Amino acid sequence: MSRTIKTQQTDKQQSVKIQDEFWGRYIRLAQDVVIPYQYEALHDRVPDAEPSHAIANFEIAAGRKEGEFHGWVFQDSDVAKWLEAVGYSLSLKRDPILERQADEVIDLIGEAQQPDGYLNTYFTIKEPGKRWTNLQDCHELYCAGHFIEAAVAYYEATGKDKLLNIMRRMVDHIDSVFGPEEGKLKGYDGHQEIELALIKLYRLTGEENYLKLSSFFIDQRGQEPNFLRQEWESRGRITHWSGQTDHLDPAYNQAHIPVREQSEAVGHSVRAVYMYSAMADLAMLKNDDALRDACVRLWNNMTDKQMYITGGIGSTHHGEAFTFDYDLPNDTVYAETCASIGLIFFARRMLELAPEARYADVMERALYNNVLGSMAQDGKHYFYVNPLEVWPQACSCNPGKHHVKAERQGWFGCACCPPNVARLLTSLNHYIYTVHGDTLHTDLYIGSEWKGMLGGTEVNVTQESNYPWEGKVSLKVNPAEAAEFGIALRVPSWSSGMEISINGEVLDPAAGLELGYRVIRRVWSAGDTIEVSIPMEAHRVYAHPELRADAQKTAIQRGPLVYCLEATDNSEPLSSISLNETGEFTEVFKDSLLGGAVVVEGTGFRVNPSGWSGGLYSREKAPLESVKVTAVPYYLWGNRGSGEMKVWIPEGKA
Amino acid sequence: MSRTIKTQQTDKQQSVKIQDEFWGRYIRLAQDVVIPYQYEALHDRVPDAEPSHAIANFEIAAGRKEGEFHGWVFQDSDVAKWLEAVGYSLSLKRDPILERQADEVIDLIGEAQQPDGYLNTYFTIKEPGKRWTNLQDCHELYCAGHFIEAAVAYYEATGKDKLLNIMRRMVDHIDSVFGPEEGKLKGYDGHQEIELALIKLYRLTGEENYLKLSSFFIDQRGQEPNFLRQEWESRGRITHWSGQTDHLDPAYNQAHIPVREQSEAVGHSVRAVYMYSAMADLAMLKNDDALRDACVRLWNNMTDKQMYITGGIGSTHHGEAFTFDYDLPNDTVYAETCASIGLIFFARRMLELAPEARYADVMERALYNNVLGSMAQDGKHYFYVNPLEVWPQACSCNPGKHHVKAERQGWFGCACCPPNVARLLTSLNHYIYTVHGDTLHTDLYIGSEWKGMLGGTEVNVTQESNYPWEGKVSLKVNPAEAAEFGIALRVPSWSSGMEISINGEVLDPAAGLELGYRVIRRVWSAGDTIEVSIPMEAHRVYAHPELRADAQKTAIQRGPLVYCLEATDNSEPLSSISLNETGEFTEVFKDSLLGGAVVVEGTGFRVNPSGWSGGLYSREKAPLESVKVTAVPYYLWGNRGSGEMKVWIPEGKA
Repeated sequence: MSRTIKTQQTDKQQSVKIQDEFWGRYIRLAQDVVIPYQYEALHDRVPDAEPSHAIANFEIAAGRKEGEFHGWVFQDSDVAKWLEAVGYSLSLKRDPILERQADEVIDLIGEAQQPDGYLNTYFTIKEPGKRWTNLQDCHELYCAGHFIEAAVAYYEATGKDKLLNIMRRMVDHIDSVFGPEEGKLKGYDGHQEIELALIKLYRLTGEENYLKLSSFFIDQRGQEPNFLRQEWESRGRITHWSGQTDHLDPAYNQAHIPVREQSEAVGHSVRAVYMYSAMADLAMLKNDDALRDACVRLWNNMTDKQMYITGGIGSTHHGEAFTFDYDLPNDTVYAETCASIGLIFFARRMLELAPEARYADVMERALYNNVLGSMAQDGKHYFYVNPLEVWPQACSCNPGKHHVKAERQGWFGCACCPPNVARLLTSLNHYIYTVHGDTLHTDLYIGSEWKGMLGGTEVNVTQESNYPWEGKVSLKVNPAEAAEFGIALRVPSWSSGMEISINGEVLDPAAGLELGYRVIRRVWSAGDTIEVSIPMEAHRVYAHPELRADAQKTAIQRGPLVYCLEATDNSEPLSSISLNETGEFTEVFKDSLLGGAVVVEGTGFRVNPSGWSGGLYSREKAPLESVKVTAVPYYLWGNRGSGEMKVWIPEGKA
Repeated sequence: MSRTIKTQQTDKQQSVKIQDEFWGRYIRLAQDVVIPYQYEALHDRVPDAEPSHAIANFEIAAGRKEGEFHGWVFQDSDVAKWLEAVGYSLSLKRDPILERQADEVIDLIGEAQQPDGYLNTYFTIKEPGKRWTNLQDCHELYCAGHFIEAAVAYYEATGKDKLLNIMRRMVDHIDSVFGPEEGKLKGYDGHQEIELALIKLYRLTGEENYLKLSSFFIDQRGQEPNFLRQEWESRGRITHWSGQTDHLDPAYNQAHIPVREQSEAVGHSVRAVYMYSAMADLAMLKNDDALRDACVRLWNNMTDKQMYITGGIGSTHHGEAFTFDYDLPNDTVYAETCASIGLIFFARRMLELAPEARYADVMERALYNNVLGSMAQDGKHYFYVNPLEVWPQACSCNPGKHHVKAERQGWFGCACCPPNVARLLTSLNHYIYTVHGDTLHTDLYIGSEWKGMLGGTEVNVTQESNYPWEGKVSLKVNPAEAAEFGIALRVPSWSSGMEISINGEVLDPAAGLELGYRVIRRVWSAGDTIEVSIPMEAHRVYAHPELRADAQKTAIQRGPLVYCLEATDNSEPLSSISLNETGEFTEVFKDSLLGGAVVVEGTGFRVNPSGWSGGLYSREKAPLESVKVTAVPYYLWGNRGSGEMKVWIPEGKA
């Protein structure tokens, strides 16, 4: 069976290729190491790693072998995220072996699909009679959402529609179960994901039903009577996880009030940003002002009051959740990798809603710090939690910090983060530019080639730079024929004194500033060259006075990169070090540091422990001595053995 | 049935009466408010408080009424601790109504005792066939221990031996179940307590079997094969608390290695100090050097590396436990009230083992700060957790701090702390002096009258002072006839420049210093007067450089009292305040402050939030302004509404 596709993808009108030294390396890592490694992991062939059992579950559900379901109830989604990453990867570079592997996995998925279109190995194998009885916990729609995203990506890369058709049948099935019509469930998933996936499917196929279903899930959420509460009552107030009685907190699932009335980021942070992403999509597609206003309120609360300087969100591991305004502890932090990836999804969609550079600023912050730092330089080890302060012994010996790891782990029992990183890296080309009217907005400074229509003509824009190490960016604008259109260049919020010249002529620095972009509208001709110069000096950052965890401390930032101190470069305990309030920084590019990076050195003071009079408490303070303070990019931390790390450093005076 | 008592109590050779303005008020509060309030609470007659059901359990077990067991498995111990406090209270002041109430409760306990001597309402009512099957979790010996302590205290106060005989029958029963002999359980309780109780019983009665049983429990602990592990295996690795499979960690119960081999304070902190107390008792009674060495090692580790400046112990609420050296977070702290009370028990016994002032220093620190601060000025509200830094909103909105309360609570589901405070306050007279040979050691400066034998004659020593507000202490020494003996006066470790004069003649400040005491050995005559002058100025305290949570911060202490900042006296957020590194303190006694207290004022700086440029992070620091910093004694915190509090304050320079 093959179904019609009426392409609606806005991205179809443009194409972007990354050609960038910095990101090229990570994208190749994702392609050459992460995706193959994850393929092995899904097949339980990684030595010394917890088995995933994800493929085995499909083989059992497909009837290819006997056995029991193993893993999380959402184990299927790991396969989906891998397939999605494969799709993006194949769109960057054909790879027949990888494509064959993916096709085989898709065949297997097809065999595991039930005659009515239902697809979920947990309920097929383990609880066949219990479909759709515990949306709160069981992730059925969430898994479907990930497969939909995979199907879209795979179709766009290869033109193969097998997975797409599998998922369209599954969505038809879902549509027969959920909806406002009598007899259907007035419910939604405990873990948002299908909402944004259905929009991708709608954009690809033009099928209005998908948009309608996504809108239903979004607008039904938080309505009274509360679906999650009714469901919880009807199953005897127990949770799937332990089978025991459990407390219900609809705010954990952002289902405490209707989404249009929400103003504060609450609950599980990944669910939150996945939902906000779908809300932003719907706001744009349906030109829905009330929904857009809710998105803006939630964005503002999250990024103005609940976001770490690294772009991490979620202050507590209890429920992997937001806590409240200005509560951003550095050591008991959560800041899950997936949550920052979701924040990037949301930011990208807010940029489509409105050309405001602040959305791109946050996207860049999350990308270059929290997300990039989650992956080891070998591509095989990941942080799930991304702390801003680590004392390794506390991670192992204080149970309140057991969730924080001082070293990246091989593969997780709950392996959501690594495939999420892979799918982001392989689709990073979609995050660099947005088009508003006939203006091309440069949201990220990443070496790349953009192609699309502007001012009625085909245009090719080539961006080159040595970002994030240097702030010089060159853009060559090549319209097929001379035409008037706009090029908007983001002025990073961390920068001061950005300069722009066109064909050697420096622009008035005050001209054309719109919502954080320098917008250049003119008649462009082939070969026009824009030179952007963003001062990249290392500087100090301070936190809002209400942010107690960072009070009287400073962080070091250079360009988009947040820096940190590590024990390997400074002496432990790092808590004894302060940065000279008036000291200068020196910046050195060190080839030898983990693939090359700019190291920032400053002067400071250190409590000399040999001057301590002894005992746990004393009237006598240990003397200070001057020290060199060495900071490295946060994203590189923990790649040189286990030791203390911290981002926020007290300031001192001589 | 009545049994012989051969009194062995060392305390019988001395008597101490407290006559002290500061402590007199708290002891009266314990007598007039706490004990009656707890009586009502045990009878479920306190409005708006969780019902205890402790007396009701006994009524059911006694067959006086029908019903089910409610409360914790150790609910009985609340009754025992109340009775113990009643015993101490009656020894201070006869009270026929209270004595009648206690007698009635004792009658009830007698009726609840089983024919074979067994006494425990949980197992009698709820799991009659399961006695002694889960020592790890079920607190049977722990409850027995508390009743033994109560029985001894009540007998000593009233001469009535009914409860004593009940408990001797229970101990006979325990002795028939536990021991090295074949057929007996080679076990011990998951929560230590009976060990120290049996020693009290031995000291009162002279019955060697009690000493032997205590020694057995202490020395059996941690031996292989591990009893707790065997028991856990045989019940299918499940825990009593949830009935679910659970992880076993014998270190939680200090049963990971034999106690004589232990060097680090680990596990549940109350269990630890109760055990160490019994170890110190046994070390002294049996002159057991190996056991004493273990006590000294454990004391050193705990007080040199794992104790808060307030005398709190236990850094994590996970298992109410120690974590590891120098891990003393101020905001996620546990520092349970009962643990500090147990630390005082241990300190008192270490003082009997060796006349070293450092033990009394810690006893004083825990008493005047952690323990005293746990009780509200009304005697009816308590802290279970005693934090050193509180942000009330974080206590309610960040699950990692839910265990920390910004205001004292009425009565707990697990109500161990209030009765523990009551029994400590009513027996505080036992903690002021120790006698070594013919030297009387003044361990605490509390107004009191000591009577006992020194140098072969009856001596009466009267101590007077306005401690802890003033450091002038006067002791009148009245021997029945002139005699040579020693009076040792503790030199507090926080003090500098203590002076002593006898009958107006100033002593050489270097003379007679022994292990932290000024020992004055001479022929004393009736009316000899010692004047002690301890400089009490407010001063700064710094923490060991390895103690990361307090790095680059200072605490204020005056005499034995640790101070703190509260929001009501300073502006929130307290994190924006630093103390001028070179500023002076002024000290004012304020009558109006919660019964009168010395307030310490200093100068400092505050981040002026109105100068903040906006946003969550900024390159521009908010400007500093000079402020007055007001500190109040830690023990008074939280009595003036809910607000921020902190003990450790950053230091700044102008």
